[in-house]
Amino acid sequence: MTNAYEALIEHAKQTAALEQASQVLHWDQMTQMPERGAAQRAASASALEAAIHNRKADPRVSEWLDLLADRSLAAPAARNVALIRREHARATRVPEALAAAIATASSEGYTAWTAARESGAFADFVPALSHMVSLTREQADHLADDGQSRYDALLALYEPGAKADILLPLLETLREPLSLLREELVDSPPPGQLTGPFPAEDQIALSREVALALGYDMTSGRLDLTVHPFCSGVGGDVRITTRVQEDNPLDCLYSVIHETGHALYAQNAPLDRIMEPSAQYASMGVHESQSRLLENQIGRSRAFAEWIFPRFIETYGTGSVASPEALYAALNRVETGFIRTEADEVHYNLHILLRAGLERDLIDGQLEVDALEDAWNTQFAADFGKTVPDAVSGVLQDVHWSQGAFGYFPTYSLGNLYAAGLAEAMRGALPDMDAQIATGDFAPIVDWLRQNVHAHANAEDPEQLMTRAMGQPLSTAPFLSYVTTKFRDLHNL
Amino acid sequence: MTNAYEALIEHAKQTAALEQASQVLHWDQMTQMPERGAAQRAASASALEAAIHNRKADPRVSEWLDLLADRSLAAPAARNVALIRREHARATRVPEALAAAIATASSEGYTAWTAARESGAFADFVPALSHMVSLTREQADHLADDGQSRYDALLALYEPGAKADILLPLLETLREPLSLLREELVDSPPPGQLTGPFPAEDQIALSREVALALGYDMTSGRLDLTVHPFCSGVGGDVRITTRVQEDNPLDCLYSVIHETGHALYAQNAPLDRIMEPSAQYASMGVHESQSRLLENQIGRSRAFAEWIFPRFIETYGTGSVASPEALYAALNRVETGFIRTEADEVHYNLHILLRAGLERDLIDGQLEVDALEDAWNTQFAADFGKTVPDAVSGVLQDVHWSQGAFGYFPTYSLGNLYAAGLAEAMRGALPDMDAQIATGDFAPIVDWLRQNVHAHANAEDPEQLMTRAMGQPLSTAPFLSYVTTKFRDLHNL
Repeated sequence: MTNAYEALIEHAKQTAALEQASQVLHWDQMTQMPERGAAQRAASASALEAAIHNRKADPRVSEWLDLLADRSLAAPAARNVALIRREHARATRVPEALAAAIATASSEGYTAWTAARESGAFADFVPALSHMVSLTREQADHLADDGQSRYDALLALYEPGAKADILLPLLETLREPLSLLREELVDSPPPGQLTGPFPAEDQIALSREVALALGYDMTSGRLDLTVHPFCSGVGGDVRITTRVQEDNPLDCLYSVIHETGHALYAQNAPLDRIMEPSAQYASMGVHESQSRLLENQIGRSRAFAEWIFPRFIETYGTGSVASPEALYAALNRVETGFIRTEADEVHYNLHILLRAGLERDLIDGQLEVDALEDAWNTQFAADFGKTVPDAVSGVLQDVHWSQGAFGYFPTYSLGNLYAAGLAEAMRGALPDMDAQIATGDFAPIVDWLRQNVHAHANAEDPEQLMTRAMGQPLSTAPFLSYVTTKFRDLHNL
Repeated sequence: MTNAYEALIEHAKQTAALEQASQVLHWDQMTQMPERGAAQRAASASALEAAIHNRKADPRVSEWLDLLADRSLAAPAARNVALIRREHARATRVPEALAAAIATASSEGYTAWTAARESGAFADFVPALSHMVSLTREQADHLADDGQSRYDALLALYEPGAKADILLPLLETLREPLSLLREELVDSPPPGQLTGPFPAEDQIALSREVALALGYDMTSGRLDLTVHPFCSGVGGDVRITTRVQEDNPLDCLYSVIHETGHALYAQNAPLDRIMEPSAQYASMGVHESQSRLLENQIGRSRAFAEWIFPRFIETYGTGSVASPEALYAALNRVETGFIRTEADEVHYNLHILLRAGLERDLIDGQLEVDALEDAWNTQFAADFGKTVPDAVSGVLQDVHWSQGAFGYFPTYSLGNLYAAGLAEAMRGALPDMDAQIATGDFAPIVDWLRQNVHAHANAEDPEQLMTRAMGQPLSTAPFLSYVTTKFRDLHNL
């Protein structure tokens, strides 16, 4: 091979092209597929996954990587090689039979989880989840580098470079201040009544207008309806979805703002190298920082409430909300609930803390599935001051574990911490930010994100990228300062 | 390998699952994809094609086939093995470099064809088409079995078992009677005025109603808009598309009826074996017979005009058409035009004859691309009695050759011949067919097709399947009898 790098990168680009195909198939399944197409689609998706896996594990990749081991390469090439090396190791370390068993367990786990949610009995989910935990422990043993714990190895699948012994104790320091803040706030909600009706087509029209105002490019995207909102794709084809609750116009709107945050990151990836590994996103935590920053630090700010107020009135009528301040209050209602995906900014990370601790113990072997429901309920009562009424509102609420996605939850909180750090840095760089938001001039914000985050794509490890963009190392300080100031102010405390 | 057949069929089913993924990607590209997604989609589609090709050429397939060479297998298994053997041979005979060159030439050919249509100059297309012809000749040399001509080898890609020396002379016998019939009819059109407006949403609603009445299952399908109507998918996920011309309600409606014919064949494939080669369609000619039969022998019959007349009136108003007989005349207007896709039943096969002869001569080496436009125009004038006004209305009208699809055109006419033969047999089996059509009872027709064609899928070679279903060997007699009787009667001749 005269040029091992050329061969390697061409191979990786074809793999990325298949991964993009896989995302389109998934989007189609969630938005367009006829109902009787499910069985065939499962076969197509799994055949495509197998093809992608086989490419990543291809022995030729090993040979090219060996040829490049001592070669010194320039910036994007060196990073591409490092990322391909990582993916190749992941693909080859887990034995094929185990990978196949996990794929089957994931599909069966999903079925068992759905059935248990129907019956309401966690016991119905225990056998499938125990099997999945056992397979995932085995998988983690194969994936772990020297000195890595099992849970570290899984966490790194979503957040390269993250270490459980550093990240989880850091997140742990959120527990006390957030619990105290929560208690302070829940009894003193400021007035912020929204009055319907909120017709579905109006919700979608307003959400679309907001996405466009925030910079979402419809010539590279589209907006559709699904049960669970998501964003998929990269570069010239980045699609977002939302859902409509007829009695709550904020669910649709803030789902769209959240997904628009993901979408801007994906649309602003380096188009000329869009199939290269270094042009992809840096990590799940970084991705989540982009959605949460737009959703919360921008979208739930007082300035944003001022900007959107006349649009809200125009859409839903003059009686729909009393004032920008009332809208601001409605956007930031603090309520102790049982469901993570419905949680406000004060409660959200407490939900994650609960899950992160439990899943680490499950994977590292300090907790067995039999004892999981009790552990969940005990910790929930301690953190939230409420008793979980049923398993569906408790340990059965999230799909992740049924699919073997252990190590994913902490990236949600990491995204919140990064979002707060980025917002601080952005506010320093853009002193007129609030005035710009209030007039709907979001271009400076998106430009700042493009320059400091989006354009870097996966050029370096996520914590390094974020440290530079935030102008400070990862900590809980920006988030705690932001959330405490904002909500104590809003509640006149 | 203890069970070579199990290994072989599992491998083939995964390949079929990838082929279905490829069809979904294509459908998405034509109906949903954001405009800036094109470059990435091209890369994804081509990576997926390469993955499919590599699976078909996989050396393990060779080994399994060798192990099975002397094994006697039961019906679907034996057929599966034969079909996999054929695909494997096709995939391995063409050298990789040539296959890659053809893929590139196809993409460049499409671009050159589009540009030539813009400029109107065939000369602008000559270099790309010459290159494509030269590569395709080379490809055909690799594909040809002993005794097969180049053109035979290509024709067999679309119509397994067909031989140019038999099929083309058979089609040739259509030329004289159709030319004479054409001359007889063009000057005596019966009255059949349609009066608009024909709003787009009404056209789509009526078309959807007709598709459902004909048995199209929306739980396994969907109807969307595209520039060029098509049908894609099989089994539980079969999607059709149409287009709307605001001044012509028949284009949308008859595109849908045509695609519904394809879709019923695909939806009625054996669901329990849907990924097996023997459960796929038999050939392009058989597929086209299903669409043409529904479109013409059923959809353009007097009985169908009676059934749809009240629906037409209800949709477009009482002034839109005078009577069922006037509607019947409008559905069957005979006009000499230049464009194949707009041709009526009398002219259509003359368009195909023109193309089939020219492409055979191009591939077998009796004609060069430089001389193609003259050859086209000369033959057109002889067959149609009109002078081609410009290249876009002539040799530049079809996309096929730009993509290297030589040998495809004859399957359109073959589809027409099969459709007429099937309609004869069906009419014998269903003596009340016209009365059933006139009351919208299409179930007996679809049941007959399911039993005699659909359920057999690719269980045997297409001509064998059709001979049994038609109750007679392939000939032009049923078609000529049908078209002559129908149109002379309609024109009171």
